Formats: sequence, structure tokens, C-alpha cells
Amino acid sequence: MEKIDFSNTKINNGFWKQKQDMVKNSTLYSVYDRFVDTHRFDALSCRWKAGDPDMPHIFWDSDVAKWMEGAAYILQEKRDEKLEAIIDDAIDNIVKNSDENGYFNSHYLVTEQDKRFSDRSCHELYCAGHLIEAAIAYNNATGKGKFIKAMCKFADYIEKVFKIEKSAAFTTPGHPELELALVKLYDATGERRYLELSKFFIDEHGTKKEEHDSNYDYNNLLYNQDEMPLRKRSTAEGHCVRALYLLCGAADIADRYNDCELKDACKRVFDDIANNKVYITGGVGSSHLGEAFTVPYHLPNRTAYTETCAAISLAMFCNRMLQIDTDSKYADMAERAIYNGFLSGVSMDGKSFFYENPLEIDPRFNHVNPSVINKERFPITQRLEVFDCSCCPPNIVRFIPSIADFLYTYNDETVYVHQYMDSVTAYGEISISQNTGYPADGEIKIKCTAPQKKIALRIPSWCQNFSLNVDYTLKNGYAYIEMNDSIEIELKLHMPVVFIKANKRVHENAGRIAVMRGPVVYCGEAVDNGNDLRCIEIDTNAPAKIEEGEFILPSVTLQAFRQKDDDKLYSPVGDDYEPCTLKLIPYYAFANRGESEMLVWFLKK
Amino acid sequence: MEKIDFSNTKINNGFWKQKQDMVKNSTLYSVYDRFVDTHRFDALSCRWKAGDPDMPHIFWDSDVAKWMEGAAYILQEKRDEKLEAIIDDAIDNIVKNSDENGYFNSHYLVTEQDKRFSDRSCHELYCAGHLIEAAIAYNNATGKGKFIKAMCKFADYIEKVFKIEKSAAFTTPGHPELELALVKLYDATGERRYLELSKFFIDEHGTKKEEHDSNYDYNNLLYNQDEMPLRKRSTAEGHCVRALYLLCGAADIADRYNDCELKDACKRVFDDIANNKVYITGGVGSSHLGEAFTVPYHLPNRTAYTETCAAISLAMFCNRMLQIDTDSKYADMAERAIYNGFLSGVSMDGKSFFYENPLEIDPRFNHVNPSVINKERFPITQRLEVFDCSCCPPNIVRFIPSIADFLYTYNDETVYVHQYMDSVTAYGEISISQNTGYPADGEIKIKCTAPQKKIALRIPSWCQNFSLNVDYTLKNGYAYIEMNDSIEIELKLHMPVVFIKANKRVHENAGRIAVMRGPVVYCGEAVDNGNDLRCIEIDTNAPAKIEEGEFILPSVTLQAFRQKDDDKLYSPVGDDYEPCTLKLIPYYAFANRGESEMLVWFLKK
Repeated sequence: MEKIDFSNTKINNGFWKQKQDMVKNSTLYSVYDRFVDTHRFDALSCRWKAGDPDMPHIFWDSDVAKWMEGAAYILQEKRDEKLEAIIDDAIDNIVKNSDENGYFNSHYLVTEQDKRFSDRSCHELYCAGHLIEAAIAYNNATGKGKFIKAMCKFADYIEKVFKIEKSAAFTTPGHPELELALVKLYDATGERRYLELSKFFIDEHGTKKEEHDSNYDYNNLLYNQDEMPLRKRSTAEGHCVRALYLLCGAADIADRYNDCELKDACKRVFDDIANNKVYITGGVGSSHLGEAFTVPYHLPNRTAYTETCAAISLAMFCNRMLQIDTDSKYADMAERAIYNGFLSGVSMDGKSFFYENPLEIDPRFNHVNPSVINKERFPITQRLEVFDCSCCPPNIVRFIPSIADFLYTYNDETVYVHQYMDSVTAYGEISISQNTGYPADGEIKIKCTAPQKKIALRIPSWCQNFSLNVDYTLKNGYAYIEMNDSIEIELKLHMPVVFIKANKRVHENAGRIAVMRGPVVYCGEAVDNGNDLRCIEIDTNAPAKIEEGEFILPSVTLQAFRQKDDDKLYSPVGDDYEPCTLKLIPYYAFANRGESEMLVWFLKK
Repeated sequence: MEKIDFSNTKINNGFWKQKQDMVKNSTLYSVYDRFVDTHRFDALSCRWKAGDPDMPHIFWDSDVAKWMEGAAYILQEKRDEKLEAIIDDAIDNIVKNSDENGYFNSHYLVTEQDKRFSDRSCHELYCAGHLIEAAIAYNNATGKGKFIKAMCKFADYIEKVFKIEKSAAFTTPGHPELELALVKLYDATGERRYLELSKFFIDEHGTKKEEHDSNYDYNNLLYNQDEMPLRKRSTAEGHCVRALYLLCGAADIADRYNDCELKDACKRVFDDIANNKVYITGGVGSSHLGEAFTVPYHLPNRTAYTETCAAISLAMFCNRMLQIDTDSKYADMAERAIYNGFLSGVSMDGKSFFYENPLEIDPRFNHVNPSVINKERFPITQRLEVFDCSCCPPNIVRFIPSIADFLYTYNDETVYVHQYMDSVTAYGEISISQNTGYPADGEIKIKCTAPQKKIALRIPSWCQNFSLNVDYTLKNGYAYIEMNDSIEIELKLHMPVVFIKANKRVHENAGRIAVMRGPVVYCGEAVDNGNDLRCIEIDTNAPAKIEEGEFILPSVTLQAFRQKDDDKLYSPVGDDYEPCTLKLIPYYAFANRGESEMLVWFLKK
């Protein structure tokens, strides 16, 4: 199965047009400004000397690279001299300061040259991966080959050090990412040795039980994806972003080599996430400790780590799984992450960001003296413009402009439509247009030309009732339709407000329900409903009111009951509840109106 | 108001007779054996030398002293040569090894003599307090004065060092306890300087902002009860046992000096605990961090610290408050602690102990690799016979034999009956007998002779319906009855199963109810009900079945509904619940049948 690259699609209107405009006009420059302020761009000039302030951090290159990749995606749609000049300047620095072997790392080049490739935890290969991705994107956008040429040289050097000479102090990336980047580099250059180097790393992972920095309890074999070879794994373990970037590379390799053993491992790990370890928002990472997957059904809401990058990497993994296994569950999961646990990572104005995306905020406990209550376990309650570890903001800069990457795959028989966005796509003989207000409503009109192919439309798992104006056959979550060029397909996904329960083993959510409309999870905030949201019981039998809201998609107002005020700490049950209304907004929009209690899982009446 | 000391009362039958027999026959010797095994008794011989194993710990003396105090209470009822010989041997060691000034501490005497009184965190004055309490108890029980004489000398030395010469490196006990012991020593000896020394310490607390060991985040002014002078305080803060032992001393001093400012402070802090910071079990300490009170309404169930000693010290504080403020709320709170959060600290066979008494156990999370999930925050799920910090077991040894201390106070006008236990009491002109199965049922027959006095019976706050066979006037939770020697008062406290809600600000318990019968909180365990207790909804309208149980008091069986099994992690709500029964046992008896899920706060239908 092949993916149709986002570059062949233009988002015309609606939800994602707004978000892409937000990134282009706001997020791109806001993140750039903060990265300039924090000397991340300066670092590329490699002028830092011992004693200077602001020593380049080991992973700054990856922050800048993701920003450059996102900027390139924006340039690909429309060239922009000023923006190109900024990137060209950064590229000039990278190329000029790369050493004769091709090595580049703005930390090691100015600090401890001889320590290069000596510490697996130091992100050099992770940074290399992001630089490679940025170089490919910039080459595609501008045709300027200087950057990709330099990064090929760097990749060749990595091959020499790690695969041929095996002269580094470690054998695989401590933080995976290079694996998937090398597959992209193979796709971009046709040089098979990059694919082979990626496969080499994928196969090496988990075979060496490498020593780790023992300063941190969590920095162990699980954290570093080393507890066993990937192809033997059945569970998602350790640092979520590491796990999922590695799985992206593994799914790519499984696809390119048609490696069934590796495909099966990827499927098993996906199922473990989907059945046991994902929040309803598509967020993953139940613990801040190691930013990690924990154990089945352990999904605490208030201390959820659920890093924005983890939701992104889950979506990326799902998109790759669609190339090796035709099942709508992967697109369902990608959609869950995209509209919820990923999108909450950026403010409505595009300028500030969450690293952690909890499903509940109770600000009473966020400002208590940390010696009184273990405060540091709670995520922050307001988005920030930049972090010391600022991986998430530039990941948003590259993710939203390339969102159309989630739309289509195809093979000889079928074009698969995985997501619904108002857009036109032209890719060789295939042309598709979607005319839709999705996800504001579920009505989608599709025109498609694809000689000798069927079209298969995903029927989202959230949808319990749909109609099509053409004959179809349902299989693995897709409606297969025999193509007829003259027909405009009309898919109507019935999109009422629905109440969702969690598995009873998720003790955190026992007796509670979440509210969804289409793919969008809703939440309540105290700014609309007053405090003590946890004591509000939703009347699931009363009609829901869907109203235009201030956060693109509608708000939902429900009939509910809330526990009355009472002076006593404990008292006999009685006439304890009074009717109220409960106004809910899309989860992705929480914390855009100041610090406030927030809740996803409400009591049911 | 004067208290009638427990030594004037004999518990005849029923619940507390069983528990006192358990301590006398089982707990006393089990704790002794473990303290012998762990060299706590050896330490008193002061033979330890550098290089030897098992260096005496700074607080071992307090463990042994509390055991001796409990043993003395048992001797007071009935002398026992063998037991006395054990204690005499310990006393001989203490007296023999006390230095010429009277100082005794089995750690400092064999380690760093010159470091004596140099480190406020090292529990020397705390140990001294417990030794003094033990000495008083032993003197009362046996008339052997050697121990109390030695402890008076020690107290004199403490007065000299701390009050007269002010030559120690600190000014007040880091861990309060000595304050209340000195009041007892004054009561026992009539030496007013002990009372004055206690008042001196009470007044000094919080005036110096003393430096603390900064190795621990929590080891701060709050933890050490030093954030302000006690008489200015309105809230309970920091380490619970330290706070409550100090409050015991403060209430004693407030009473003895009729110090209204100090009385008011004690009342304010009590109200803060009662209105904001106590579990339904009478447990206090919401965080393991500093074993501390945290912030209002922060009452997590699964990570509740709720140390057994904290419940004991809360009950002790309540009992002292009854001497300075005639309100049943203090006896209600004492009862809450005694039957629940204290009693769960000891197994049904009397041999093993909980330090922490959580209100929920979910064993799935107790055996996970600590690098995967912040496991150490969860209390242990099975009682142990001894701990490295084994303060709780000997506190039980002294608390249960003296339980009758909670029964009565009196003043010129009235004898107050605070608790109900089948017993006879003779104290000067006052004689009272209670004939009751309480708390198995609520029927209490009382005969009382107390010339020129009324009798006032507490109507427990849990009781919504009661009857009396005599005229009475209700005031502040007590039914005042004009005395008539020939009448047997019959108090019938209606004791149905009741469902209790928490204040809506206790977000942890939102939508949940606890089950009580009389003063006893009930809990459910998986061993009776299967796992996933948190998804069981109690039908509060169906009748409760009260049946004889295996843990002294009856079990309660309720009609309920439980969420059905389901493979999916998330799915739309539907016909999700099936009827079931829910068997509950007294909370104090949890974890007597192996590791099991346990829950106090259930969903309500």
C-alpha cells in the first residue's frame, strides 16, 4: 500500500484550513522568535566557547530542524523569500560547520569534539534524524540541494561509524527517530543503503542491553526500548515518543521489506496501546516518570503525561500501519489523536503550547507548596510559548501543514480515504476532491477519478449510523465502492452527541462518562460551569444542545445535576443534587481562558 | 473538667473486652518478640560499640517505652511476675546506664556522647517523653518507684539544659511528645516545675524558626510545627503525629492554666481538621510526603497515609479537648478514629500491623516495577509484624488497654458519658456501669451513682434517631439527665445501615458514598466481591442485610449493580450494568484474608 503524500493535496476550507493558516501566520513565527530568543538558531553558527552563556543543548538541533521542516512544508505551498532567507542562513551554518566527515551537532562541535558518539543518551542520532527530515522537506520545497547533500554525507558517516566500523560507544539511537528519517532519505534519494542502515538499527535495538545512565530510576531498558528485540515485542513500554518513533521506523521497514514478523510485532504493539494504554483523547503516557507507557488500564486523568509529541508520534505510527494492514482501527486512532490529545497542545491563537495534556485540572493543587503536596506530578495549567525542552512546539509547526498526509493510501485495486477534510488532491492518475464541513458536521461529498480502482471510505468507529448514496460493501471499517467517475459520492455520518464509558478496569473513570461528537472529545471548564466539576452528573436522557462556539467547533450544553453546597465534610445522603446545565467545549480548546478546573470524565446520572 | 482515668474502669464484655484480651494474649508478646529480634531491648544495655551490627536507632527507646507503658497498663489490671521481670530488666538497664545528670538515650550514650542535644531532628526529647509516660504507668501499676525516680532526674536535667541554662543546640522537641508527658509527670508527682517546663516548650514552639536538616523537601517549618507560635494557629499543618502530640500538650496546658487564648487555638485547629482534613475513618495525613496534613479537601483514598499513630494521636487530642470544651464533636471524632482508622492498624489476630491505613487498595499497581509507575506512593497491602520505624505497634499495645480513658469526664455539676462500652467504673463517689453490646447494637443500659450531679449522655453524630426512658435536655450533642440512683437509664441508639456522602469539594469521592453502621465504617474487598470494586453502584433504596460476620461486628450485604465485562477500552454507554450483591465488612478488618482490592467509597446507583 502506498501513501499519497500531503504535498499532492490542498486543504481548501474548514477546520484544517483555519489551523493551517494559524500555523502559517502565527505559530511559525512565534516559535521562531522564541527559538531566536533562546539562542537555538545562534547555536548553529558554532561560535559558542567555554565560559559563554547559553551552551547549545544536545537536542537544540532537533528543535530547529523540526521548525525548518515545518517551514519547508509551508514554502512548498507558496515560496516566500523572507522565510527562505531565514532557513538558508541556518542551512549555511549547518553546512559550513559540519566537519569533513559530514558530522554535525551544534553541542558536540563546540564542547567536547572527542566525546562525539560516546553517550547514547545524548540525542546525536535523534538530532541527525530531524536534520535529515528537514533537509528532505527543504529540497522538496525549493529544489535547493545543499542541505540534503550535506545530510547524505552525515548519513554516510553514521553508516561508517555504526554499521561498518562499529566504532561508536553504542550501537543504536538512544532516542529513536533516525530510523524513520533514513527511510525517508531512501525514498528521497533512491539510495538503498539508507534503507539498509535503518533496518540495521531496527534489528539492533534490544539486542545489546546497553548500559544506561543510572542517575534516573526510569532510565532503564524499558525507557530506552532495549528490553528485547522489537520483533519479539507484544507491548508498548517505556518512553512513549521513543517507542512510537521507533515503531514508525519499524513499520516503514516492515513495509519496504515486506517483513511479516516485524509487521506482526507492530500490530501487536498497536493493539496493546489501543486496548489498554491510550486515553480517550489519543494521548499516551500515563506517567511523567520516564514520560512513559505504564501498565494496562492505568490512565490517571489529573496526572496524565500525554505529551503532545506522543500524540503526534502515535498518529505517525498509525499512518504507517495503514500501509501494512488495511484496517480502519489505525485511522480511527490517528483521528482520535489528531482532534484531541494532539490539538490541545497548541492554543487557539497558535502561540503557546502544552507539553503535557491532562484530562483533568484541579488548580487547587497546582499552587500548593511542593513540600506539602507532591505538586510536581501535576501538569501545568496554562500553555507556555517555549520550554527548556521545547520539542512539542516545532513538532506542531511541521505536523499541521502536513496534516493531509493522513488522507489517502492506495494500491492496485483501491484508493482508501482515511480522513475527511475539505480538500482537492491530484496525484498521477488519481484525483480526489472532498467537499465537507467535517468535523463540524458529518456530510462529505467526494469526487474521485482513479482508473481501474475502487474507492474505500472509512466509516469512523465513533459513527453508529451513516448513509451513502451509492452501493457499498463494508470490510474492516471501510465502505468499498465501485468507482464511477460521474458520480459524486455523498457520505452522511450521523454525528449526534454520544456518551462514552471506559472499560471497567479503568478504575479512574468508574461511574463516569465522556462526551464526544464525531471524533471530538468534549470537556467542561469552571469558567463556564463553576468549580467542583467532578460532582456534576450528566442526564444522558435529556437532549443535548449543540451551539456555535468560540473555538471553531460547536459547544455542547447538557442537562445535569450538581451536588449542593454543604458545610459538613461528611453527612448522610439525602436530597443532595440540584439541576443545572453543563456547557462543554472541545477538549482541544481547554485552558484558552485562564486557569480553570477542567474535566473530561463526568459522573452519569 | 476532669477525666476519669481508665484505671478506674473494668471492661467486662463485648467488643473492647475481645480487643483487650487480644492485646494481652497476643499483641503484647508478639511485639515484644519482634523488638527482641530487632535488638531494641538489647540496646538498653548500652553495650553497643562502633563496628558492631545493629546500632541503636535514635528512636528505639520510644518503641520500647510505649511497649512498657502498655505492659504496665495490663499489669495494673493483674500483676504478672514474668511480665514484670521483663520490664524490671529493661528498667534496670535504663537506670544503670543513665548518666549522672539523669540523661538517657540508648543511641547517643553509645555513639556520640558529645553530640547529645545537638540535633533537633534526633528524637531525644520525644524518647524522653515516652520513657516518662512508661515510668508513670509502671509506678502506678506496681508501686515500684525506681523508674519514675530516674525519669524525674532526667526531666530535671532537661529543665536545666533547655529552660535554665539554654545550653542545647535547639530549644524545643523536634518531635513533640515530651510536652504531654511532662503534664502527666506533674499530675503523677505534683511537682509544678514539670508543668511549667511543658508550658515553656509549648510557648517556645514556633518562635525561633530553627534551622532544619534540608536533605528532605518536607523537613521544613510546617513539618516541625514551627511556622508560627501555636496559640496563633488556625490550621493543622505538617507532620500529623507531631502536630497532634503537640496539640495534646497544648490542650493540657490550656486546661491546667485555664489559658483561653491557647484553648481557642486548639479549638480552631480541631475545627480545621474536622471540617477539612480528616478521612471518614478518622485517619489523618493525606500525604506520605512528611506524613502530613495537606490542604483542605485533599483526601486521596489510594495514597492516603493515615498513619495508625496519627489516628491514635487524634483520639488523644479529642479526649483532651473534652476537658476544655463541652461539645460532643470531640467525642464523635475520637469514636470515628477509634473504631476505624486506628483499629485497622492491627490484624484480627493482634500480631501484625499497618503503619498506613489507606481507604482503597488496587493491588494491580502495588507490584509494578517502580521505574514504570511511581509505586512507592502506595501503602503496603498486607500488615507486617514489625517495621524499621515501628512506632505504631507499641502504640496499639498501650492504647487498647487504656481505651476506657475515653469514657467519662466530670465536673461539679455533671458526669459526661462520651463513649459506650460494657463496663463498670468506680471513682470516688462516682460509680457507673454500662451494660451494652455496643457497637454491635445501639442499646445501652446505664446505672450511675454520682451525688449532686446530672449525667450527660453523648448522642453520637452518626445517630439520627434515638430514645431514652427518662426525661432529658439536649445540648451540644449531650442528653442531660437529672440523676435518680434507682433508675437504670435505657438509651436506644437506632443503628441502621446509613449511606454517607462527602462534601462536594472532596473531588476524590464525588458521586460516591460510604457505608456506615453506628460508628463503624464499612469496606468491600475483592475476596468477597471480585475485582473492579470501583465500578459497583450501590442501590441505596434496597434493604441492607445485616449478618453475623467473622470480624466481631456484623457484615452488611447490599443490593448493587456492577459494570459488565467488555473487551473495548472505550464504547458508547448502553445496557452496561448487571445486578449483584455487595458484601461489606468493617473497615477495621480489611486485609485479613490476603491481598485484595479494597474500597470504602462506592458509586451510588
